[in-house]
Amino acid sequence: MNPRPIGVFDSGMGGLTAVRQLRRLMPSEHIIYFGDTARVPYGNRSRETLLQYARQDMRFLRSFDLKAVLVACGTVSANCLEDLQADGGVPVTGVVEPAAARAAETTRTGRVGLIATRASVASGAYERAMSRIAPELKVTALACPLFVPLVEEGRCQPGDVVIETVAREYLAPLKEAGVDTLILGCTHYPLLQDVIGGIMGPGVQLIDVGGEAAAACRNLLAEQDALAGQGTGSICCYTSDRAANFARLASLFLGEDLAGRVEHVDIAQY
Amino acid sequence: MNPRPIGVFDSGMGGLTAVRQLRRLMPSEHIIYFGDTARVPYGNRSRETLLQYARQDMRFLRSFDLKAVLVACGTVSANCLEDLQADGGVPVTGVVEPAAARAAETTRTGRVGLIATRASVASGAYERAMSRIAPELKVTALACPLFVPLVEEGRCQPGDVVIETVAREYLAPLKEAGVDTLILGCTHYPLLQDVIGGIMGPGVQLIDVGGEAAAACRNLLAEQDALAGQGTGSICCYTSDRAANFARLASLFLGEDLAGRVEHVDIAQY
Repeated sequence: MNPRPIGVFDSGMGGLTAVRQLRRLMPSEHIIYFGDTARVPYGNRSRETLLQYARQDMRFLRSFDLKAVLVACGTVSANCLEDLQADGGVPVTGVVEPAAARAAETTRTGRVGLIATRASVASGAYERAMSRIAPELKVTALACPLFVPLVEEGRCQPGDVVIETVAREYLAPLKEAGVDTLILGCTHYPLLQDVIGGIMGPGVQLIDVGGEAAAACRNLLAEQDALAGQGTGSICCYTSDRAANFARLASLFLGEDLAGRVEHVDIAQY
Repeated sequence: MNPRPIGVFDSGMGGLTAVRQLRRLMPSEHIIYFGDTARVPYGNRSRETLLQYARQDMRFLRSFDLKAVLVACGTVSANCLEDLQADGGVPVTGVVEPAAARAAETTRTGRVGLIATRASVASGAYERAMSRIAPELKVTALACPLFVPLVEEGRCQPGDVVIETVAREYLAPLKEAGVDTLILGCTHYPLLQDVIGGIMGPGVQLIDVGGEAAAACRNLLAEQDALAGQGTGSICCYTSDRAANFARLASLFLGEDLAGRVEHVDIAQY
């Protein structure tokens, strides 16, 4: 048993969908979340800039006495996870490997789709992870750069012509490729599950990277006998832009109210 | 006569539409442009974060021996211009005052519209500027947070159902208010001129804040007898993310090729 907190970070709010899954799976854990809202979004940035930002995010989180870190940012997981793991000091779980393993288990046709930010797709990380697990899989990967701003502006309802048009365009090559499994490779995308599911049809399984990463994190802690035990967990949020703005939107992603549990951090100091 | 360069900065690429106007009006000037692409967009950030970023952008530009700075970011102009002017050392022109003056000159009905980022609208800067010039004007101000990502993904053509739907929704209250003059309060928006003009109709004058700021900058230099004279001007670009990514997109905003004239800057060091 280990009551120390789990650290989670993302470029902004999206990672709270992973926190939601962590809390569902492990309601006794204490969670420290950092959302880098002063520098969001990460998805179109270069690898050099991503690594600099991710290391600062890690340094801030490690100012707490953590037992594990979950990188709830698809872009950082895809581009910099090995660097963060090599920096050492705390076990670091990303969203790529768990989702790739689940996709390999799920697919029957061997045709898997991936949608993510431009930087995640450019990294090739999902393809590499799947080729290690099941080299015969055929992966079709596509960047969907407008999904994050559209979700953040609340345009995620089925029937909205804007999100439906953009999603139909983005997803057309995946329908053509005949994928039966689709990795939603960004923690914003669970909010688009109904829109994406409607377009892809009931024969296509959608994989939520945040949910898979939360399960992997639980397995890791269980193996090390480091779960928190029976108490009631908590969540503390930190943000690099204004705390008030963060709290207002966070409930959309987290599914619970955050009032009073958000503080500001000057991330450039880390 | 003064051959020293003019500095220009923006959160990203958008300010290059102002540089395009500077070069049209003053082809002999040397221009140093900084685009903060590692931290773009600025439009949803808090005033505190904006001021921190803007001061770093200024410190970088002032590492050159400049005769003037044009703040080609609507959000910084609306939120922090007076702070930057108070910091002293070089004359600083923003995009708010020149556009407000032009709008006051242009309107016949006294009903003026403003579209801009969330942070620009929240600042109330355009209303304050116009009430100083012509207190009888009625200003209707609206945030259009999806315009920047849509422009950056190239969705700016009339007839595109996505930009047309979003623009019609955003602009409906302005049509209802019966404005005859509309300030395009963000340097990305000139790329949406045809879409916005098509929706607002021929009776509404559109005001390009970058073009007005470029003219104000020229007038300021002319008054001080500080124009460059007759030679051929130049442009050097600096960016906080990868230079290659910047160069690829910049021509869309600038209207000329930038190849080989972009360098990387670590803005966090300033």
